[in-house]
Amino acid sequence: MSAGTGGVVVGVDIGGTKVLAGVVDRAGRVSSTARRTTPGRRVVTSQVEDALVEAILESADGRRLAGVGVAAAGFVDVRGERVMFAPHLPWQGEPLRDLLQDRLGCQVLLDNDANCAARAEAHHGAARGARSALMITMGTGIGGAVLIDGHVLRGANGMAGEFGHMQVVPDGQACECGRRGCWEQYSSGNALVRNSRALMVEQPSVLEEMSGGNPDRITGPMVTSAAEQGDLVARRAFASVGDWLGVGTANLVAALDPEVVVIGGGVSAAGDRLLDPARTAMQRTLVGAAHRVVPDMVAAQLGPAAGMIGAALLVQL
Amino acid sequence: MSAGTGGVVVGVDIGGTKVLAGVVDRAGRVSSTARRTTPGRRVVTSQVEDALVEAILESADGRRLAGVGVAAAGFVDVRGERVMFAPHLPWQGEPLRDLLQDRLGCQVLLDNDANCAARAEAHHGAARGARSALMITMGTGIGGAVLIDGHVLRGANGMAGEFGHMQVVPDGQACECGRRGCWEQYSSGNALVRNSRALMVEQPSVLEEMSGGNPDRITGPMVTSAAEQGDLVARRAFASVGDWLGVGTANLVAALDPEVVVIGGGVSAAGDRLLDPARTAMQRTLVGAAHRVVPDMVAAQLGPAAGMIGAALLVQL
Repeated sequence: MSAGTGGVVVGVDIGGTKVLAGVVDRAGRVSSTARRTTPGRRVVTSQVEDALVEAILESADGRRLAGVGVAAAGFVDVRGERVMFAPHLPWQGEPLRDLLQDRLGCQVLLDNDANCAARAEAHHGAARGARSALMITMGTGIGGAVLIDGHVLRGANGMAGEFGHMQVVPDGQACECGRRGCWEQYSSGNALVRNSRALMVEQPSVLEEMSGGNPDRITGPMVTSAAEQGDLVARRAFASVGDWLGVGTANLVAALDPEVVVIGGGVSAAGDRLLDPARTAMQRTLVGAAHRVVPDMVAAQLGPAAGMIGAALLVQL
Repeated sequence: MSAGTGGVVVGVDIGGTKVLAGVVDRAGRVSSTARRTTPGRRVVTSQVEDALVEAILESADGRRLAGVGVAAAGFVDVRGERVMFAPHLPWQGEPLRDLLQDRLGCQVLLDNDANCAARAEAHHGAARGARSALMITMGTGIGGAVLIDGHVLRGANGMAGEFGHMQVVPDGQACECGRRGCWEQYSSGNALVRNSRALMVEQPSVLEEMSGGNPDRITGPMVTSAAEQGDLVARRAFASVGDWLGVGTANLVAALDPEVVVIGGGVSAAGDRLLDPARTAMQRTLVGAAHRVVPDMVAAQLGPAAGMIGAALLVQL
């Protein structure tokens, strides 16, 4: 059952839109990837398990499975056995680890996707060598993880790192979670798109053409591309999202005082266009900035493979 | 030099107004206390050290010092050697540990007062038995500490747990730290007093008589006493401070997922008058409350002695 006895370790990342599996070696290199579309949340749960098993077996390509790590976009219980709930998946307390173990005949370990990405960046990426780090994952919303003394903090319920729903504006923007003013309403892929739509009313933008005149069709990557072309609406949208990234990060740094802050997720592909305003806002907002080493805020290095790599680390560590 | 070879361990807590020293035994019991007035921040630093040494020696009362632990109301460097700065004390990078070690001829260890209080509550008080806890200290402002796997998180700069200056309201109330909207502007002894002053304009209150008709003379303990008497202004002030306590705590619980939340400091003497609205607000604001064990929010058990007891633990652990 151990990774040392030959066979391959597969890491699989199940997100809201796709399942991504790959063979991961001890240096964190990924090969032989396989992909499936996530069946969605209105299907029977076995369909999601089928997609996972298919992707894992395709990736292993006939080789013996030494172990499988699963990164899931949802709340995983503290023992790493179940997905308690997931906004884009049908699971509710599903004993995923045992189900997959039975079907695959090898050791399966399970964790939240943001924890997996943080573990990957700590071992093979942007937080390598740091004893403590804060990992903030900006995709559609905000996820994250806390690294302390080289370990990912799981928390009493396995729910540590849910940064996206920290309230930053009283009675603020309504959130999908049912509350208001959550951080991810101001700093995320969704916020980037909403900011752009609002700003397009004020000034012309290439986003009009890119979206075929329909603001509902604007996406995060579209805004990133428009900003690269010099579009002012897109650049202002990034400035705001970056500023809020810095404000929220300063709050977490005040509480945790980490060595380094790693920004990952799709939005982080914008690099310094996102990070520069964030660094400025963090410096402005962080208590005692004059009396401390303000942590570096750096982009994640492993990209979309971080979840897979960190899932495999569950088995390899 | 060790606490095991006979002699007494003294814990000393230096706050903005007083220096409190006491002999602390291994069960956390305090005896033979001594007290001095804190000389203030406009004196030469040696006067503060004199007050500390006097209180320590009075407490030891001729017995051999096995070791001294110091809890300081300020930022202590990560190695526990220096007080980097302190709002109510003259120290700026003062090598307090070595200075006291030279004067006392015994081992001296130093930490931030909130960290010491958390360590004390974890070993002898409200967080006993918990692997992880969040300690929030509500006095004039908000201090705090994070307990993970039984250890107080110090952070890369020794500055973890600075919860009071997490921003909860954009462009909010001005804070002594120079920024705006800090949590402690809405939930602290100062906030309690400010709320009361504002509410007295709207309705009659016993605080008018208690303060001799001068709202500037209202203090936190006065508001606590007025609330006990049923005063509506004082009760509304507590409801608001408690609500904000719950909102800020929910943010920290989202990030850290602790087993228990301990509320200490002077304002916590109000007990459930503070904690009930805080629990309600935490339940309302915390992400995934329906899918997790929401941590208990409990009052600290060791009162003003927590700093001394936790300082002594630096030597005893």
